Amino acid sequence: MTKTIASQLVEALGADVVTIDPDGIAPWLSDWRGIYKGQAQAVVRPRNVEQVSRCLALCQHAGVPVVPRGGNTGLCGGATPDGSADNVILSLDRMNAVRSLDTVANTLVAEAGCILGNLRRAAQEAGRLLPLSLAAEDSCQIGGNLATNAGGVNVVRYGMTRELVLGVEAVLPNGEVFHGLRPLRKDNTGYDLKQLLIGSEGTLGVITAASLRLLPRADVRAVVLAAVSSSRQALQLFELLYGQCGARLQAFEFFTGDCVDLVLTHAEGVQEPFAQRYPAYVLVELADSVDEDGLNALLEAVMGQALEQELCLDAAVSASLSQLQALWKLREEISEAQRADGPHLKHDISLPIEDIPAFMASCEKRLQAVDAGVRPFIFGHFGDGNLHYNISRPAGAPRTWAAEQGEAITAEVMDEVMRYNGSISAEHGIGQLKREYFHRYKHPLELRLMQDIKKLLDPAGIMNPGKLL
Amino acid sequence: MTKTIASQLVEALGADVVTIDPDGIAPWLSDWRGIYKGQAQAVVRPRNVEQVSRCLALCQHAGVPVVPRGGNTGLCGGATPDGSADNVILSLDRMNAVRSLDTVANTLVAEAGCILGNLRRAAQEAGRLLPLSLAAEDSCQIGGNLATNAGGVNVVRYGMTRELVLGVEAVLPNGEVFHGLRPLRKDNTGYDLKQLLIGSEGTLGVITAASLRLLPRADVRAVVLAAVSSSRQALQLFELLYGQCGARLQAFEFFTGDCVDLVLTHAEGVQEPFAQRYPAYVLVELADSVDEDGLNALLEAVMGQALEQELCLDAAVSASLSQLQALWKLREEISEAQRADGPHLKHDISLPIEDIPAFMASCEKRLQAVDAGVRPFIFGHFGDGNLHYNISRPAGAPRTWAAEQGEAITAEVMDEVMRYNGSISAEHGIGQLKREYFHRYKHPLELRLMQDIKKLLDPAGIMNPGKLL
Repeated sequence: MTKTIASQLVEALGADVVTIDPDGIAPWLSDWRGIYKGQAQAVVRPRNVEQVSRCLALCQHAGVPVVPRGGNTGLCGGATPDGSADNVILSLDRMNAVRSLDTVANTLVAEAGCILGNLRRAAQEAGRLLPLSLAAEDSCQIGGNLATNAGGVNVVRYGMTRELVLGVEAVLPNGEVFHGLRPLRKDNTGYDLKQLLIGSEGTLGVITAASLRLLPRADVRAVVLAAVSSSRQALQLFELLYGQCGARLQAFEFFTGDCVDLVLTHAEGVQEPFAQRYPAYVLVELADSVDEDGLNALLEAVMGQALEQELCLDAAVSASLSQLQALWKLREEISEAQRADGPHLKHDISLPIEDIPAFMASCEKRLQAVDAGVRPFIFGHFGDGNLHYNISRPAGAPRTWAAEQGEAITAEVMDEVMRYNGSISAEHGIGQLKREYFHRYKHPLELRLMQDIKKLLDPAGIMNPGKLL
Repeated sequence: MTKTIASQLVEALGADVVTIDPDGIAPWLSDWRGIYKGQAQAVVRPRNVEQVSRCLALCQHAGVPVVPRGGNTGLCGGATPDGSADNVILSLDRMNAVRSLDTVANTLVAEAGCILGNLRRAAQEAGRLLPLSLAAEDSCQIGGNLATNAGGVNVVRYGMTRELVLGVEAVLPNGEVFHGLRPLRKDNTGYDLKQLLIGSEGTLGVITAASLRLLPRADVRAVVLAAVSSSRQALQLFELLYGQCGARLQAFEFFTGDCVDLVLTHAEGVQEPFAQRYPAYVLVELADSVDEDGLNALLEAVMGQALEQELCLDAAVSASLSQLQALWKLREEISEAQRADGPHLKHDISLPIEDIPAFMASCEKRLQAVDAGVRPFIFGHFGDGNLHYNISRPAGAPRTWAAEQGEAITAEVMDEVMRYNGSISAEHGIGQLKREYFHRYKHPLELRLMQDIKKLLDPAGIMNPGKLL
């Protein structure tokens, strides 16, 4: 009798690395929001790249699907297994060493399982900045950040994860190790293969380590909360700030007055920011490495100009760290407040930034036609054209509303995004959640090329089936 | 009788677009340095993407090789046809429209034939920065910059061309148009296919337009020339400046005292920078968008610290624009001075930055063993670990020296670079020049994946044969 893949894995890697007991597997089967749930025959938690390689080689030989998993903080079900009982979950959490942190080369080489927040702090202690910053940073793992090309609040200045990556080490589905970890700043020797792995959501191979670029620290901060009449005014304010503040502009976040309502209702320790409620708000952060007084003076001067030119209605500049944190709290609590409000529909979209006002108007109109009571809560990384266009149920509607109306509502939003040549996934990826829309809207040529590349790198089709492609 | 491909091209695109007369073709057959010379049966100069598409479809059908060509400023023969009389040269020079320049979205959409310098000036006039800056900027074309992933003097701050690209429009070898020009800052919908075209040196398809990221302007500048005892001291100075100057550090260029000799001998209007000659020099540029006094004060303070900590021997800070330009001239004239000195060997290499001192010592030793009289002129983008490690002939050796000794010398340099896990091409690419070394040193897995991708996108193998792969 031939051995099962589960027993082969145990034999090859040890019971300490491979869990096949159903009770041990159970906690690994769903996403953190509890939206997706799948099945698996084993959870493999390798300690090094050789073990990852052996795991994949065995799985490919047996034709068994592999679901790579980082910190499980994704919002699209990309790291949750599907319904097949054959799945092998490959968690990178034990590969969590910082292999090097170098303040001359300004590089950080980290294994896939390192927690982003820990890497940020390590860089900071060394007088450098790892600029990737997002809500889940104290749970998410850097391997997952690369696999999903994570975004966050500082993309307007520093770009997406992709732009911070100098090299990757990865294992291909057949077990071959891609030794692409060279921490060189410049290396023009052929096609940049690592780019295929970044953002591929575990469908082409498993990233086991990355060399990342460290930037000069930017820990001198100044924050302003500006009240605006509309997204159009926010747009004008953005243009002014981008032109006047130079490289210092590192966050330009937008949220509607409705979001403030939600936060004031559900979050603790948050205060109404102005004497009156405004239609929308913009949170701006400037950051530099020196001269706090100069930074504050610059921000005050530019905001004075904005008020004079009527590019905002009111503005509150942070005068202390606690004020700065209080202003950020207004923005950071929105997701949690919306969750407390009940089930809702998340849409992580991006648009050509100039089209945001028109999109917001026309999309709301479409939604009203479907269900007049829907409550859009719109916030996000406005400076990147990235909105979290989230929809809560009409007042008084049952909590089942999202499950029942979700498809119809989301279809309208996605379709409207495409009418403006936007993206149906700005920073969260496709996973299971948006696969149908991805196939519906992606240009056939691009889809064909992606499928061809998938076949090339994963001919047995074992990598993260049911996700993305 | 079947028509020749040349006559088919003329018929499809017109005699205005297709040159088949040998005298008309002749000026297109060599690289600007006159090192490479090839043959071709036609030069095609399309005016739009449809014409590019028809050209490629016809060529693929006929199995005729296509050599894409930008500004012909490359240093590796990547845009020069090989010896086959069948070649069709495809010049993008007539596709030179700026399709849009947007100071709200901060994007520039330019056709492939746009001259880089013109795009930089257009951005500047709009109050924005296109940071790609290199010696050939007033001749090179942006399509070529993307195809070779060009570098230059500001990579230490802004990264390579790749990091500035939001989208590309390209034509695949079968004539299909890849409509990837979306100027979105964030778009996580599948594999990032444009990354394959960037840096592929025309071997996978033809880039016809690009959307580029514009950055906040940084036109307030301060420059210092520091004299250093060695590359090791330069390294320490770099660490200090990167830590103290924040995002302002935008160039950190290195050159040896021998390079200064060469420039003083061959260039006009250049002066000895200090009262004495030093072993090596570092040219540092800081740039910001505001506060010139603050910038100068910062640079002076940090350089004061550097002198005190003995991280440099002497320093001259620019006090005016003309002084700033005079300091830059010392660095900029090195290539031209070396050319005036006679035939020489260029090596565009990169190293883990900390290994530069050890590499410089050990590589010189190897070269001395081959030919004791060789004169290395070493300069480059030190902050990126990128050296232009150029070798001139021994004093008194004939001008034929480079041609006769080139292979032996270059083999030593390349081998020594690989001993340090460096790159045999930091920013110039592979082209014809380094193809042999590329095949010798590239990891077999990476080479195989590149060949597989080549077959996938260019199954007929018509795109730029004899280059890169």
